[in-house]
Formats: sequence, structure tokens, C-alpha cells
Amino acid sequence: MKTVTTVKEMRALTERWRRNGKTVALVPTMGALHDGHVSLIKAARAAAQRLVVSAFVNPTQFGPGEDLDKYPRDLKRDARLAANEKADVLFAPASEEIYPAGFDTTVTVGTALTQTMCGLARPHHFQGVTTVVAKLLAIIRPHQAFFGQKDYQQTLVVKRLAADLNTGCEIVVLPTVREADGLAKSSRNTFLSEEDRRVAGAIYQALKLAEGMLQVGERHPKELLEAVRKRLKSEPKLDLEYVVAKNADTLEDVLILSGRVLVAVAVHLGATRLIDNVIVDVPSGS
Amino acid sequence: MKTVTTVKEMRALTERWRRNGKTVALVPTMGALHDGHVSLIKAARAAAQRLVVSAFVNPTQFGPGEDLDKYPRDLKRDARLAANEKADVLFAPASEEIYPAGFDTTVTVGTALTQTMCGLARPHHFQGVTTVVAKLLAIIRPHQAFFGQKDYQQTLVVKRLAADLNTGCEIVVLPTVREADGLAKSSRNTFLSEEDRRVAGAIYQALKLAEGMLQVGERHPKELLEAVRKRLKSEPKLDLEYVVAKNADTLEDVLILSGRVLVAVAVHLGATRLIDNVIVDVPSGS
Repeated sequence: MKTVTTVKEMRALTERWRRNGKTVALVPTMGALHDGHVSLIKAARAAAQRLVVSAFVNPTQFGPGEDLDKYPRDLKRDARLAANEKADVLFAPASEEIYPAGFDTTVTVGTALTQTMCGLARPHHFQGVTTVVAKLLAIIRPHQAFFGQKDYQQTLVVKRLAADLNTGCEIVVLPTVREADGLAKSSRNTFLSEEDRRVAGAIYQALKLAEGMLQVGERHPKELLEAVRKRLKSEPKLDLEYVVAKNADTLEDVLILSGRVLVAVAVHLGATRLIDNVIVDVPSGS
Repeated sequence: MKTVTTVKEMRALTERWRRNGKTVALVPTMGALHDGHVSLIKAARAAAQRLVVSAFVNPTQFGPGEDLDKYPRDLKRDARLAANEKADVLFAPASEEIYPAGFDTTVTVGTALTQTMCGLARPHHFQGVTTVVAKLLAIIRPHQAFFGQKDYQQTLVVKRLAADLNTGCEIVVLPTVREADGLAKSSRNTFLSEEDRRVAGAIYQALKLAEGMLQVGERHPKELLEAVRKRLKSEPKLDLEYVVAKNADTLEDVLILSGRVLVAVAVHLGATRLIDNVIVDVPSGS
């Protein structure tokens, strides 16, 4: 496996692959690879003839006071993991390579998908994500790019951008990979103390509670969300940012839960922000 | 020459060209081709093995009350002209092909280049331009795209976008093509009455006056702009929108004119808006 740090070299590689008729897959990450990433890399490896894993801690998707500086970085370990999974390239550019002097362009997806949920507490987050993803798709020109469902709102936003800007890239979303107690795998889990790690298990339990309630017929967001909040608040260290139940395709709030229902939460546990979600197919009219 | 109206067919063609190692040039237009476009098409034809002329009246770069509805359209004539110049493809998609239902992404270049000159009277214009150009570059994947200097601010904005989004496309800017009296060729010139057509000649005369003043040593924007305004106002039918003298690379205002100086004007003549500019190399310190 080759580690590439410049746009020029990355583009030359992928141009050559394209010219030779190879299919190309991308797994875009911020590094600090965990089992969730590995599941994306395995799927991407099986799907295409050439596989790029990108590892770039994108500064523009962090807000002031967020954890950009302390975000975990371990490029050697990332390279080892990507090589184990037979990636062809680890693309790990420096920040100045992606945002050189004079850089002044922004890609924005409209407010319906971005000014809700994570976009409320992190108002410039998705603009940072869409701009860097537009750039990565232009540099690497993958036929498919793989994302995890944990960042569900992000997957909708990226799908919108990939279609709207005619990237020719299919966005593939794979299930969240979880710890034994259900906690979603996340690079930020390494920040948790042993006690916080135990407490964090409540997030998935609350989501499973919502899933169960939907399966036995609950259709009212208010009742559902109250139950989820109550379960989360049983762990006093969990500080709730949002708990929502929405149309999973549009992120619209609904009066009656039916169709594909997203139940999503964001919590703070000490200085660490964690998000998770489940999607439940609710037969309409039942 | 082939006329292509769908993104899918256009992409298939250009993917095949790329795979066969062909170089691709694009001349993006809003149709209603005139001699200025023809000079771009000739240069693009000489520069690349495959040549696409696009003709798309982009609704998102027109503001409310502007001339979107009456903008001249004559696709048959455009196809004849493009074929005469041996273009390989005229890409002429319908609006719904470029902006299908649900479209919700915007590409924006920062305010330094866009919130001045044409961007003041047309606040969403450049966002419309950058979004559609990002899409055209993604669909057609040209190695080079050709623009005319008449829309000088646009060329700076598009260069910024093309670099920032890693399009891999070089933006080539060619000199403005003019009528015998110096009026810049423009699709909108067809709107002018005989009398207005005569009056419009004053625009280039005023710009030539500025050029002459710079060449004989004028370095103060105030004096220069007053002379330009005075010349323009000698034609009472010309309604001035802006007259500026700026650093031609950054569009910044300067106290002393030196280096590459842009002198640019926008005027209204009846219902028709006309823009033009000259760039003068002023030896610094002279």
C-alpha cells in the first residue's frame, strides 16, 4: 500500500486507474480508524478494483471550542490497518494541501438537511463536510464512496451533494458497528473514562427502547421521545443535546410516525460529544 | 457534430474520451453565440482533441426582474455555428436536467471577489455562475475551459472555484472581441435600438480614455474615474451602475494605481445592462 500526501500524486494515480478502466472506491475518514471504518474498508475492497482510504482531520468541519486539536491522530496505525485490508492507497494530505493560501470556495447543502439535528449545535459543520467531500470526490474520482450510518445526517447531506454536483459517485451507507454493549464505534470513544464508557451504553439502550416502542405500535413522537429522554436521563452524567424522531428521508418532523423513521440522539459526556441513531421501518396505517 | 441534451449521454461521451486519452476543451456559453464565442471556440478547437460547446441559459444566475425570460435563444443557429467551428458536441440540456427536483446544493466563492462590482447589483449572480460551472466541469471534465475577458470578474471567480474544488481544469481567458466602434460583443447587444447602439460606443471610448490616462502617468483612481464618468455621462441615455479602477488580480480598491489595473464599467441603456473593461499594465513606481 502506498501513502500519498499530495493532490497531484493522488490525481495522477486515479487518472491512470480510470484510463485503464478500473473501478475506484473511496472510504473517506478522519483517521483514528476503528472497527466501523474497517467494515467500510472491507466492503469497499470487495466492491472495486482500486481502493483509496483517506485520512484527513478536516479543520473546517470543527467549530470554535470543539475538539479539533485533541482529535485522535495515529497515521502509522491507520496505514497498518488500511494495508491489512489491502487498500491500494492511504491518502493523508496535510491541511495546507487541501486548503492552500487563497482558498475561498464553499459547497453548501440547503437548510432542510443541514439546519437541524447536528447542524443546530454545529452551525458550520456540514458546510465543512460538504466542501471537503466535494474536493475529495474531485481529486479521487471514485465510482463509490462508503460512509457509516452512525453519521446518518451526514450521509443524507453527502448524497445530496454527490448527486447535485454531478460527481458521478454513488454514496454507499453501511450499518453502524457497535461495541458489545451497543455503543457505536467512534474515534471519540477513546476519550471516555472507564466510568463514562459504562454510562455511554445507555445511548443505544435508549434507541433500542424507541425501536421496541415503534415495533409495538407507538406512533406519537412526543411519547416516544419522552421515553427516550427518560432512559437517557437515568444516567445523570449524560447531557442531552438533542433527541429526535423524524422522517428518515427528509429529516422533517412528523405528527404521526410512519414509513422510515429516524430516531437520533446527540449527547455530551464530559467533554466528549457522542451521536447515534436507529432507523425503523414503520408500516404506514398500522 | 452531435447535440447532447442529457447529463448521462454527455458523461458517457467524455468518460470514453478520457479513457482513450483524449484532451477535452469546453466553451461554456448561454447560447446566442456571437463572434466573441466564436473566437473562444476557435482557440478551444486548436487546444484540444475533443471540443464541447455548452449552451445553457442558467436560471440561477439571473435575479428577479432581470432578463432571463427575454434572453436571446436560437439553438439551431448555435448548433450551426458550433458545427462550422468543428465542435464535437453542443451540450444543450434543459433546465430540469441541470436542476432536477430536490436539487439543493450551492457553490460559493468568498466575498472579496463576488461582493463587489457586478455582485453588488446582482447579489446571487456569482453563486449561480459558480454552481453551474462546478456542475458543467464535473459532467464534461474538460482539461481546459475558455472564457472571455468581457466578463472579467466572472473569470476570476471561476478560476478560484476551479482551483479550490480540484476540478483539474485550467481556465483560459481570451481577449474581448469588439464591434468596429469598440463595443464589446455580447448576446445582449441584439436588444439595442439603432440609437442605443450608437450611444453604447461611448463605453469603450471611456475605457480607452482611462487606458490613455494610465499610459501618460495618471495614478489616482479619483481623477481617473471622474474622467471616465464624465465621458460616459456625455451620453445622457447611459445610466451608470458602476465605474471602478481596481487591482486586477484581487479586485481590491487601491489608493495608487500600479501593477495590473482593471478599469471596469457597468451601464444600463434602456432595459439593457452592458459591462466592459480594460486591463492596463502600469509600471509600479513610474
